[in-house]
This record gives sequence, structure tokens and C-alpha cells, in this order.
Amino acid sequence: MSSAAKILVIHGPNLNLLGIREKDIYGIETFESINKRIKFEAEKLNVQIEIFQSNHEGEIIDKIHSAIDNFDGILINPGALTHYSIAIRDALKGVNIPAVEVHLSNIHAREEFRSKSVTAAVCIGQISGFGSDGYILGLNALLMYLNK
Amino acid sequence: MSSAAKILVIHGPNLNLLGIREKDIYGIETFESINKRIKFEAEKLNVQIEIFQSNHEGEIIDKIHSAIDNFDGILINPGALTHYSIAIRDALKGVNIPAVEVHLSNIHAREEFRSKSVTAAVCIGQISGFGSDGYILGLNALLMYLNK
Amino acid sequence: MSSAAKILVIHGPNLNLLGIREKDIYGIETFESINKRIKFEAEKLNVQIEIFQSNHEGEIIDKIHSAIDNFDGILINPGALTHYSIAIRDALKGVNIPAVEVHLSNIHAREEFRSKSVTAAVCIGQISGFGSDGYILGLNALLMYLNK
Amino acid sequence: MSSAAKILVIHGPNLNLLGIREKDIYGIETFESINKRIKFEAEKLNVQIEIFQSNHEGEIIDKIHSAIDNFDGILINPGALTHYSIAIRDALKGVNIPAVEVHLSNIHAREEFRSKSVTAAVCIGQISGFGSDGYILGLNALLMYLNK
Amino acid sequence: MSSAAKILVIHGPNLNLLGIREKDIYGIETFESINKRIKFEAEKLNVQIEIFQSNHEGEIIDKIHSAIDNFDGILINPGALTHYSIAIRDALKGVNIPAVEVHLSNIHAREEFRSKSVTAAVCIGQISGFGSDGYILGLNALLMYLNK
Amino acid sequence: MSSAAKILVIHGPNLNLLGIREKDIYGIETFESINKRIKFEAEKLNVQIEIFQSNHEGEIIDKIHSAIDNFDGILINPGALTHYSIAIRDALKGVNIPAVEVHLSNIHAREEFRSKSVTAAVCIGQISGFGSDGYILGLNALLMYLNK
Amino acid sequence: MSSAAKILVIHGPNLNLLGIREKDIYGIETFESINKRIKFEAEKLNVQIEIFQSNHEGEIIDKIHSAIDNFDGILINPGALTHYSIAIRDALKGVNIPAVEVHLSNIHAREEFRSKSVTAAVCIGQISGFGSDGYILGLNALLMYLNK
Amino acid sequence: MSSAAKILVIHGPNLNLLGIREKDIYGIETFESINKRIKFEAEKLNVQIEIFQSNHEGEIIDKIHSAIDNFDGILINPGALTHYSIAIRDALKGVNIPAVEVHLSNIHAREEFRSKSVTAAVCIGQISGFGSDGYILGLNALLMYLNK
Amino acid sequence: MSSAAKILVIHGPNLNLLGIREKDIYGIETFESINKRIKFEAEKLNVQIEIFQSNHEGEIIDKIHSAIDNFDGILINPGALTHYSIAIRDALKGVNIPAVEVHLSNIHAREEFRSKSVTAAVCIGQISGFGSDGYILGLNALLMYLNK
Amino acid sequence: MSSAAKILVIHGPNLNLLGIREKDIYGIETFESINKRIKFEAEKLNVQIEIFQSNHEGEIIDKIHSAIDNFDGILINPGALTHYSIAIRDALKGVNIPAVEVHLSNIHAREEFRSKSVTAAVCIGQISGFGSDGYILGLNALLMYLNK
Amino acid sequence: MSSAAKILVIHGPNLNLLGIREKDIYGIETFESINKRIKFEAEKLNVQIEIFQSNHEGEIIDKIHSAIDNFDGILINPGALTHYSIAIRDALKGVNIPAVEVHLSNIHAREEFRSKSVTAAVCIGQISGFGSDGYILGLNALLMYLNK
Amino acid sequence: MSSAAKILVIHGPNLNLLGIREKDIYGIETFESINKRIKFEAEKLNVQIEIFQSNHEGEIIDKIHSAIDNFDGILINPGALTHYSIAIRDALKGVNIPAVEVHLSNIHAREEFRSKSVTAAVCIGQISGFGSDGYILGLNALLMYLNK
Repeated sequence: MSSAAKILVIHGPNLNLLGIREKDIYGIETFESINKRIKFEAEKLNVQIEIFQSNHEGEIIDKIHSAIDNFDGILINPGALTHYSIAIRDALKGVNIPAVEVHLSNIHAREEFRSKSVTAAVCIGQISGFGSDGYILGLNALLMYLNK
Repeated sequence: MSSAAKILVIHGPNLNLLGIREKDIYGIETFESINKRIKFEAEKLNVQIEIFQSNHEGEIIDKIHSAIDNFDGILINPGALTHYSIAIRDALKGVNIPAVEVHLSNIHAREEFRSKSVTAAVCIGQISGFGSDGYILGLNALLMYLNK
Repeated sequence: MSSAAKILVIHGPNLNLLGIREKDIYGIETFESINKRIKFEAEKLNVQIEIFQSNHEGEIIDKIHSAIDNFDGILINPGALTHYSIAIRDALKGVNIPAVEVHLSNIHAREEFRSKSVTAAVCIGQISGFGSDGYILGLNALLMYLNK
Repeated sequence: MSSAAKILVIHGPNLNLLGIREKDIYGIETFESINKRIKFEAEKLNVQIEIFQSNHEGEIIDKIHSAIDNFDGILINPGALTHYSIAIRDALKGVNIPAVEVHLSNIHAREEFRSKSVTAAVCIGQISGFGSDGYILGLNALLMYLNK
Repeated sequence: MSSAAKILVIHGPNLNLLGIREKDIYGIETFESINKRIKFEAEKLNVQIEIFQSNHEGEIIDKIHSAIDNFDGILINPGALTHYSIAIRDALKGVNIPAVEVHLSNIHAREEFRSKSVTAAVCIGQISGFGSDGYILGLNALLMYLNK
Repeated sequence: MSSAAKILVIHGPNLNLLGIREKDIYGIETFESINKRIKFEAEKLNVQIEIFQSNHEGEIIDKIHSAIDNFDGILINPGALTHYSIAIRDALKGVNIPAVEVHLSNIHAREEFRSKSVTAAVCIGQISGFGSDGYILGLNALLMYLNK
Repeated sequence: MSSAAKILVIHGPNLNLLGIREKDIYGIETFESINKRIKFEAEKLNVQIEIFQSNHEGEIIDKIHSAIDNFDGILINPGALTHYSIAIRDALKGVNIPAVEVHLSNIHAREEFRSKSVTAAVCIGQISGFGSDGYILGLNALLMYLNK
Repeated sequence: MSSAAKILVIHGPNLNLLGIREKDIYGIETFESINKRIKFEAEKLNVQIEIFQSNHEGEIIDKIHSAIDNFDGILINPGALTHYSIAIRDALKGVNIPAVEVHLSNIHAREEFRSKSVTAAVCIGQISGFGSDGYILGLNALLMYLNK
Repeated sequence: MSSAAKILVIHGPNLNLLGIREKDIYGIETFESINKRIKFEAEKLNVQIEIFQSNHEGEIIDKIHSAIDNFDGILINPGALTHYSIAIRDALKGVNIPAVEVHLSNIHAREEFRSKSVTAAVCIGQISGFGSDGYILGLNALLMYLNK
Repeated sequence: MSSAAKILVIHGPNLNLLGIREKDIYGIETFESINKRIKFEAEKLNVQIEIFQSNHEGEIIDKIHSAIDNFDGILINPGALTHYSIAIRDALKGVNIPAVEVHLSNIHAREEFRSKSVTAAVCIGQISGFGSDGYILGLNALLMYLNK
Repeated sequence: MSSAAKILVIHGPNLNLLGIREKDIYGIETFESINKRIKFEAEKLNVQIEIFQSNHEGEIIDKIHSAIDNFDGILINPGALTHYSIAIRDALKGVNIPAVEVHLSNIHAREEFRSKSVTAAVCIGQISGFGSDGYILGLNALLMYLNK
Repeated sequence: MSSAAKILVIHGPNLNLLGIREKDIYGIETFESINKRIKFEAEKLNVQIEIFQSNHEGEIIDKIHSAIDNFDGILINPGALTHYSIAIRDALKGVNIPAVEVHLSNIHAREEFRSKSVTAAVCIGQISGFGSDGYILGLNALLMYLNK
């Protein structure tokens, strides 16, 4: 890839509460500071990004659709929708843009129902358990993939 | 039924991508051409139709509610929501308007989780596997039912 | 397809009782009147058909085999065998003739064990819940497929 | 019931081997001696009976159909078909003639898969575990029911 | 068996409500009239019986234990305990007295959880679905078994 | 609590149809009359309330988030979302405001899939089966809890 | 209802230990103080009550039976029996007296096996998670129901 | 512990039949001889014991409750109740007295349903498969625990 | 065994289509050439054989019964019936003639439902995955067994 | 047994970490001190022992094999291999030397997957939950068994 | 294949005990005599073989790896590892050398957990139930495959 | 952390075959080149590493134990052992050194049994699907964690 890659970062439901809610699980970082960190890393990597958050499954699907011809990759944390939204899975598969799934907490170390992901199977891969570092790792993973 | 039947056609999430996404499964027809075909058939059958697409579960429920006193039948392809939206099931059951479920692909010949429909049980019947022909078949099926 | 298509219509076990048995589920139409309706539609569509009914899994398999080189498509209502006859599934897959599965009642709205079809996965598609209209829809579906 | 009741006795697959096969499970009585015993009891109870055995699911279904208008009750031991023949279930339900299910061995005390009966739910009741006594008990059970 | 057989008849929880409760399922016969019928049949068969009813699992187990050396057979309808009382199962197995299980209603035609019996596996056999006739049939079944 | 408690009342999908849909299950009371009754009780209890209904999962999540610092308690009937919306569960857990779950019908006496609640585990408690009385009971339950 | 309603309050196994056992789950209130509170509320509501506790499934069934013609409603906390006593379920169904199920703790927020209730399906409704408030709410729920 | 420990020994349903019932599984020792052996060992260890047997779940719960302030430890063989009595589990947890679970036979080497214990999780530990030696081992295990 | 062994070779449903159907799974060999190969091997091994094919479960059972006193061993490929015909399982067990089960394809490497065999448990052993070589291996396996 | 019994003590994977790892679950005793305690008890009981630890499934199997003709009993804590090593199960069954299974923690009170033991079924019995006391109890249990 | 084929024969855990252990299941042949028989057959077939046995999963994997470029086929009896060693499955798949799986006993006629093979899916086929004949059959099966 | 972090890199079974085996899934990179890449990145990050590979579960456990006091973090790809080695899980939990789990392929997009990880729950997090990039990402993830 010669020109700067364009990456769409999607945060699913409730992630806007970060730093406010359940700090023992998700840490004290706020949603804003995480996004700042993502932007900083993006600049460092010479990547253009757009960050999007919604609590609506439908809006996330619309956004994924809108990525066609506009983005080279998707970095997505579908939040709780990870576990049941076959519609987001179909959207990701449908647009056929490389995607990486990120989770703040280790989904294998929480409630049973969180270890199952219906969306991961249509992504390149999944990164979970590293807190906000996961977004940094995911951005790099996506770039490495796109540069191949 | 003396006057022209009014049919609401609902397309669920991701169907707007038809002709763009996964052509090996869904064929090369675009969403627009399918809708044209539905409209053409509706004219032939002397049926009034309205076509609606949304990626939002909530908007689809709102639309189904709005059909009360306005439509005689519903032709619905709930897309991926077929497999988990008990809320759409309740909406269809609640408005008590005859509905027919359509799927482009054969839901019995894909992933295990796609063979289960939570919405079909409250419809008259289900048609799956015939590509866009399914909508034509479904429209006729609905009419035959309404004319009884 | 230039010449008239030849379609084999197969009715599985107990369908000969139609109009006699469980009228609340299957309606009052007799088996004979349904077959008349199928023949009438076939004439209208300029299709040659043969209608066959048996309560024997083995005879149905024999019949499917005999369709090789003799028929262009199969319209089948396997009755209760739908739910467990892997042998009929293999027969349909083996002869490699396009088939459409039809059910009079909505298999998703009855007992749990009726919602699973082992035969549908090797058919083009499935139509269920429209009573005898299903055969008419199925015949049209098969024709549309063959004419592509 | 004023005139003599007419009962159809149906033996499913492998029951013709009785007295030859697996005597530790089914006892040493031969198939013929069991039928003699049934006939003797029928005479004592002033009941007309016909006894039928087949290893073919389809023939059993045909026989059940033929009972319409000819028999007042059915005494059936579907053998191994008990556990998977939804087609026989549908046949029994379709003809709507009172039926009693009999098993020689105690189906709750053998392999797991034998404790499930798909046919019993459409019968008046089930008698299992009493060897050939089960037929005598079943005949009496059927008569008591018909005489109400 | 030369002398008169002694049979213990056990009714489990709620059976004392017969004729009062859920008449659509269990019929209008009262508990007393059923017991009269059992006594009448016992006399006819020259059998000594004792009838016992309890809503307490523990009392039923005590009673089964007390049957050692006092009874030749047990006719038991464990009521709802059928489905979970491994303790009654162990009691029946422990005393090693031939037992027959009876159910008024057809346990295969009701809620899923009623089709499983944990006690039937240690009985000679099971009779279900014939209303109070089941006790008469069960008494005869037990006698035939004891007379072998 | 010295000043008047502020309670957010949330109605999930399809509840706006109350009094129109499935009256045999939900009764004849309309959605408006239920809300009137809630307001009347609120006045009696000296509680400030806001009532919100939506068929959109995302809007409900947004509303729950907006309750932070604005409401002392949440009274919620998530409708069909009760059974699969882990996202609403996470929202309720995230805002950490005491919530009470209400259902009009008895969720243990309907289809199997309705007996499971993914949202109840993060509420104080659940009240189901009392029709619109459930909202009155729930409001009182929430108040008792807040006054401790 | 013109005269004072008569309500039978039943506490199942181990509830007599309240205030002694596991105070982190059930609170510090003693069994006696809860009963006092119930009696106080009953007086306020002009209801006659009888309170009964037993650790014996059989005694609880006996008590439920004795309520026929003597009580207008039953308020029951079956304790651990909630999860397996089909016999109590049958007793409640058999006597056909309106019943309300109460649980001190939120059964959806504890061990998996506590979220399933076999008794709730035959009650009007279920209230769980509000500590001893649940009995007060349940008494009111029962009264509202009886006064309709 | 300075003074002599007081241990309550509880035998569940059917254990009174030991030496009479199923000797191939449980050995030929009688219930009395096992109790003698326990008493002898207790004397040797300078422990006060009381031995209690009941076939009634409720009586066992009552007995466990009565142990509060009267016993230092409980040695229990809940018999078949092991597998389903959540009520006994709650009783043991409620009284908060150290308990040891004993089984005569190896519960991992019998029917599948016997390998699951609902009561063991609230005991210190479980000993199974050593016949009556298990009680001696259990008594020692309890003492070692109390002496820490 | 002094005289020549007599072996019955049974081919189940659809095997007559070999060489015509699904060549990617079953190879290009025709049914006739496989039978020739079996006969050739039989001659080489000095074994008398009879080859039988049927698409009817009932005919296969009849044939197995007819083997009593006429054959020393059975080589059977039950085709799709492998997965559900408990009746064929009972027939093989009933006649008590050593049998070997053969499958052309590796049943563990195809659809999930094909990895389960209800018939293999009553055979000496099972050979799967070697194409028509499986029959040659099976014939040898049967002979080695009979010569012991 | 006249001469001194020879017992092989086997510790499975990770047990060498005792006293270092997870002290809240396993206590503060080190692996060495536990072995000292076992040796001390062995001397007291006049038993010859050899203690063996390995993190390798294969080495444990080799060791079990080597016990043939060299040891009278085996005391084994298979660690995590308890839950999946069918190979160790087969080894214990194969050498046919009486074995006792010991677990430090109560396997019924931890993660679900730890309550299942594939090895216990081929041992005399199992002791779990008593910390290092379990080895002392197990040694005594083994001796009692050998001395019979 | 012009030159002599080289076959690696692998015996998994516990097979070295053959002839010593559980003779009722595995027969009286010793491990040595089986290997002699394999060598004899190999000579007859003009095949070079190496025989390897290990109780260590890791050693078996190492051995499979070492077969690359050194062997033309693998004949493997993974013993109990058949049922859980995904690592051996991956090794067999990784080296991409044709393999045949052999079991002495009929894995479909023993405990439930033995009927599942995780390794068979990556082999050409599986032979089970013929005792040591299985190795002879397997060697021939492998040769036939290699000679194609 | 002031001084250079010391990281232990563990490769499980079959990973030594990389570049040789199944290149469509794992890519063409050899095991050596991946290790070179890891070493290069380690140097860049100023981290001391040791790389270890074994096909033996036991050796991996030994190695993990040896990390106590010698390493600050573990980067592990347990290969197929991921899915069943509770022993490795216990080892990782026991040594209490931060670990990151890496998989080359996307475990959610392969066979069902590969989506379950028994080891991930005791790691900080899991990275899967990025080929050898996963190791680079994992090394960075571990460092970020250690530097907090």
C-alpha cells in the first residue's frame, strides 16, 4: 500500500461509559483518553482513522456498509453484540474489508456466555484481554496485514 | 377481497448490499433490480406494495406496528435477525397481519445457526433457497392466502 | 430449455389420507383434488408431470433413482420422512436432479421435531406452510430454476 | 359397543424372530405361540382380530390406513420403529382409531435410546415390560376403553 | 404360588385429590372409587391387598421397606416423584420385590419432563395412559408374573 | 432519602401495542391506561417519574446511560430483549442505578425460551405474572429498596 | 370479594433458619420478625392469614391440600424445593387456588441451578430478589388478583 | 479443641437396609454392625457421637438444624438424596457446621446420574468407594479438620 | 470351518448408484465392478457369496432374517440407514450371525451426523474410508473371524 | 497380608509446586513436607512406599506399568490429568492393582470441569477436599482394603 | 510404487500390556506375538516396517514428525489418546503421510466416550473390532492405497 | 521495570513443522524464520528471550515451572494442547507469571472444537489469527503489561 491506509474504528454498545463504569474490570481510562491514544498511534503509523461509537446495532451495520470504497480496514470492538449479532457478522462479511476484533477484557476469563464470539469468525483475528493496549495492538495487526 | 391488497415488503439488515456482497451465495442481482422485479410482479397481480429496508431491528418493529390498518399482508426477509430477534417475532404476532418469510439462500444448507428461525413460527409459511424468485413466490403465496 | 420440462411429483407417507385425516392442520382438500390442481397448473405451464405416492421409504428411493435421464426436476413432499430419512437425502443428492421440497403445514409452527429437515439441504429450496398452494408455488419455483 | 369389536394387531420389525433371537431379553416363547395366546384371549373376550407382521415401515403404514372403517382399535408393537418412525406416528394419528402400544421388554431398563417413544404420544397408553402378557393386558386395555 | 398373593398398592403424592383436581387430565373418578375398584378386582383374583397413599417421599420409602417378608408384589403409582426420586428407586431395588409402575395419564403425551421415569427401570414394567383401568391391568400383570 | 425519588420507567419493544395485541395473554388494558396508573401511583408515593418506550435496543441503552446523575432508580420491562440483549444487561450494570425488572405475563408459564432472563441478574429483583399490577408492585419494591 | 380474604403463607425448607444462616445473602432479619411483618401487613390489608413452615416436602403438600375450601390464596416460598419438586407443582395445580411464589434472593443472580423454577409455572406470578419486602409485595399482588 | 468433639452421624434413605439389600454393591455388613464399628472408632478417638437414620428428606433437614450449638461436626451419607436434594445442601450450608460426605460405593463407577453430588460442594470433602471403611476414614478426616 | 463359508453381502440404499453419483466422494467404480471384485476375491478365498442390494429397510431386514441357517457371516454396508435404523440393528443382533460393517467413505471425515453408527455396535467391527477396498478387507476380516 | 505392603504413591502434574502456588486453594504446606508426612504415616503403618512425581502423562503411565509384581497398591493424585487422561485410566485398569484416588481440594466445590473424574471409575474409591490429610486417609483406606 | 513401501507402525499408550491386561476385551495374544505377526505379513507383502510403541503423547508426535521423507505410510493405534489428543491429529495432518487407524476392540460397542475419535478424521480410514487381525487388514489397506 | 525484561517463548506440539505442514492455513514461513523474527523484535524492544519448543505436554509444564524467578513473562502458543490441557492451565496459574496466548490461525474460524481454549482463562489475554505477526503483537502486549 503506497498511500496512507484509512481505518475505521468502531466501538459498540456501552463503551462510551469507559472510565465511568465497572472500573475493576475495564480500568480507569476514560473513553476519550483511549480514543486519544488510538489517534496518537495512528499518527505515528501514518494512518488516517475515523472513530465511531454507537449503542445501536443498526447504526453499526450502516457504518460498516458506508466503509465500502472509503476504508481499507476496520478495527471493531462490538461490545456485548459480539455474542449474538449475526447481523453485524453478515455486514462485516458482506463489505469484505479486512477487520480485526478487539476486546478490553479477557473474554475467556469472564462469564461463560462471553467466551463465544459470532463475529470473530469473519475477522482476520481477535485480540482480547489487554485493556486499551488491545486497540494499539489491533491497529498494528491490521497494518501488518494490509501491507502484505 | 374486492379491492387491491396492500402488501408491506420488509428487507432486514444487509440486504441493501445485494449484488455487491457475497455473490457466490446470493447471486449477482442488485437490491434495486430485485425490488423492481417485486414491483413488476405486484403490478401484474394488481397489488399495492410498499418496500422497506433497514439495518435496525427497532425500525423494523416500528414499521411492522405501522402496518396495522394500513396493510393486508407482510412479506418479510428478516436477514440475520431471523435467528435471534424474538422482538420481531413478538411484533409480527402482535399486529396479527398475515406474513410470509422469505430467504434468498437455502437456510438448511449453510451454517448450523442459520437453520433455526425464531420468526417463522408466527408466519403463515417460509420460502427459502430460490434467490430473488422467493419474493415472487412469496407474493403469490400471500395473495393466495388473502384471497381465501 | 426448448422442449417441455418433465417433472416428477413425489408424495411421501400418509399424504394419501389428505382430506380424511387431521383437517384442522391440513385442510379439507382431498389428495385427489390436490393432484388435479397440480395437473391443471402443469398444463398451464406446459410441463409434463408424473405423480407418485408411497408410504414406503424404499419405493420413494427407487422412484428417485428411476428419474435419471427421465425427468428434469423433482417436486417432493417427503412427509414425516423429511425428519429422519438420510437415505432419501442421499438419493436426491445422488441422482443430481434439481428438487424442491414442499410441506403443507408450517413446519416451524408445530412440534419441535418437525422443524428439522434432513432432506432440504440437498434441495434447491423449501416451501412450507401454504397448504396445497405450496405445490403450485413449488412447481413454479422449479420451472424458474430450470429456465435459467 | 353392541357388536363384537374388531381389533387389528400389528407386530413391527424383527418380532417374527421371537423365540429364536435373544431369549435372555425376550423369553423363549415363539412368535406363533404368542399369536395363539392372543387369539385365545380374543375369543374369550369375544373380539374379532387380525394379526399382521411386517419388517417394512411402509407396509405397516399401508395396513394402518386400511384399518379405516374396518377396525375399532389397534394393538401395536412397532418394534425398533417405535424410536424413530414419525411416519407411523402420523399414520396412527391420521386414521384416528384408538391404539395401544405394547413392548415385550421394559423400555426404561435398556439402552438409553429405547426409552424414547415417538409413537406412544398418539396412542391411548403404553404397556411395557411384561413379555407376551403385555399383549393380553393391551387387548383388555383397548376393550375397556372401547366399552366406555 | 399356592396361597393367595399379597400385594401392596402405593399411591404417591396428590393422588388423594383424584376426582377433585384437573378432571380434564385425570377423569372424574374419585380416589375412593378407584380404590374400591382395585379391591373388587383383588377379590375377584383372590389376592390380598393393602392400599397406601402418602404425599411424603419418606413415608413411601418406609412403606416399601416394610413390605419385606410381608408382600409378594408392589403396584405403585409414584405420582410426580416418578421423575426425580432416586431414593424410591433405590428402595424398590433394595427390597427386591416385583413391582409394577402405573400412571393414570399417558406420560408420553404430556410435558417433556414427564416422559422420563427414574423408577420404572427397577420395575418389571410400566403401564401408562389408561386411567384407573391401569391399576386393574397392573394388578393382572403382577399376578401373571408371580404365577410364572 | 429526604427529597422525592426520581424513577425512570422503561418499556421495551412491542409494549406500545398493549391493549391492541394478544389480549388473551396481556389483558385488555391499553398502554396509555397502564402509564396513567403508574403516574397515579407515583403521585401517591410522592415519586417523580419519567416514562419511556422504544422498540430500539440502542435507544434503550442510550436512555439508561442518560439516567446517570438524573435518576435514583429504574423500573424496566425489556420485553423480548429480556432474553438476548446482553447489551442492555451491560448498560444496567454499567450505570449502577438500582433497577427492578417487570414482566406482564408469567415468564415461567410460556415458551421455554422466555423463562431465561439475561437482564434480571443485574437487577435487584424480578416481578412477573401480575399484569399491570406488576408495575405498581415494582414501583413499591424500588421505593422500599431506596428507602433503606 | 366482600368478606376478608384468607391467605395461607407457606415457608419451605431452611427458611426457619433466617437471621441465623448466611446473612450475606438473606439479610439479618430473623424468621420471627419476617412473620411479624407479614402479620402486620395482613392486618393493615384486612386479610386473615395462617403461617406455616416445614422442611418436609410431604407436609407442605398435605398443607396445600388442606387449603381446599379453607383459603382464598397461597403465598409460597418453596425454598430449595422450587428447583425440583414436581410434586409441589402438582399439588398447587391440583387444588386450583391462586398462588404467588416469593424468593428472598434474586434467583437469576445466583448459581445456575437456582434460576429454574418448576413450581412458578402453576402460580400467578413470581417475585424474587427483594428480601422480606417480597412477602409484602406478594401479599399485595395476591390481593389485587383476588379483588379483580 | 480441648474437650471431646461431638459428631452427628446421619444416614440417608435406604441405608437401614444395609446387609439386606444388593449385597453385590454394598457388601454383607449390616446397618447395625456398621454403626457398632463407628461407635467403636469414636470411643477410640474419644469423640461423642449420635447416630441418626431417616428415609425422610424433611427429618434429615430438621436434624441438621438441631445440630446448631449441639455438635462440632457432621458425618453424612445422604444416600440417593445426594443427587437432587438442594434442600439438604442449603441446610448444611445454613447451619455452618463442618461436614464430611461419605458414600459406601464408588459413585464414579456406577450409573451416570450417581456421579453428580449437589451436597458435596458445601462439605469439607467427600470420601467414596471404601464400603464401611469410609465412615472410619470420614470420622478421622473430620477430627483432623477440627483439630487444626 | 471345514466346508466353504457362506457369506451374505448386503448393500443398503443408493449404493446401486455407485459410479454414477457423487464421484468425488465415492470414486468412479461402478456398482457392478465392485461386485465383480467381491466375487473374484470370494473365489480366491474359496467362499460362497450372495450379493443383495435394496433401497428398502424392510427388505434388508427380511434378507437378514433369511440368513438364519443359510449363511455363516454377513458383510453389510447399510448406507444411510447406518445412522438411524435401529430395526436393522435389532435384526443383526437377532439372527446372531457374525457381521462386519463396511463404508466406502470415511464416516468420520464427512457431515457430523454420519459419524454415528447405530448398527456398528452389534457387528464384529467396522471398516470405513477405503473405498471398494473396504469390501475386500471386510471379507478377509470376516473369514479370519470365522476360522478362529 | 503377612509381609509389609508395598505402596506406590504417584503425584501428577504441578503438585511439585505445592506450598509455592495458589496457597488460598491448596494451603501452605510444601510438597516436601507432605511427602515427609506420608513417609511418617507409612512407617507407623509398617508399609513400604515409593513416592513419584511427574508432569508427564507418559511417565506416569510407565510408572504404573512398572508397578506390576512390585507393588500391592497405588495411591494416586493425578492432578489435572484426572479430568481427561483416559490413557492413565486404561493404565490403572490394565495393571489391575488396587488404587485410591486423592485430591487436595474438594473437586465438587470448584470449576464445573473439575467435578468429573475419568480415572476414579477404575479406582477403589476417591477422597477429596481434605488437603494433605487426604493422603493419610488414602493410605489407611488402601491398607484396610488390602487387609481384607 | 516401484520400490518397497516403508510403513511406520505406531502403538499408543498401554498397548505394551497386551496379553497381560484385560484379556476378556483384548484377547490373550501378547504384544510381542502381534508384532511378530505384523512383521511376518510385512515380509509377505514385501514392505519395510518399523514398529514403535510409547506411552507418551509427545514421543508419538516426535515419531510422526520423523516420518517425513522416511516413510510412505503410517499404521497407528493411538490407544486411549484416540479420544482426546488433538495434538496427534495435528501431527498426522501436518506430515501429510497416508495413515490408517486401527483399534483392537470395537470402539462402538464399549463405553460411550470410546466411540468418538478425534484422530480418525485425518486418516484414510479406520478399522476397529477385529483384534490383532486389524493390523493385518490395516497394512493391506494402506498398501492398496499406496499402490493406486 | 528498570532492567531488561526476560520473556520465555513457548511453542507447543507440531509448531516445529511450520513452513512444512498445511501452508494454506499457517502460511509458508518456517519455524526458524518465525523465531528469527521474534529474536529481532526482542532485540529492538531490549528484551531477553529464550525460545522453547516441545511436542510433550510434560516438558512444557516443566519449562513453565522453571520460569519461577527466572522470567518476567511468558509468551505461549500451546498448539493443540490449548483445547484440552488443564495441566498446562494449572501450571500457568501456579507459577503466577504474566502470560499471553498466541495462535497463528483464527481459532474462531476453524473446527468447532478449536474455538474453546482451556488455557486462555489464566492468561492476560489472547491474540489469534494474525499468523506470525501474532508473536510480535504478543511480545509487545506482554511488554506494555509489564511496564504498567
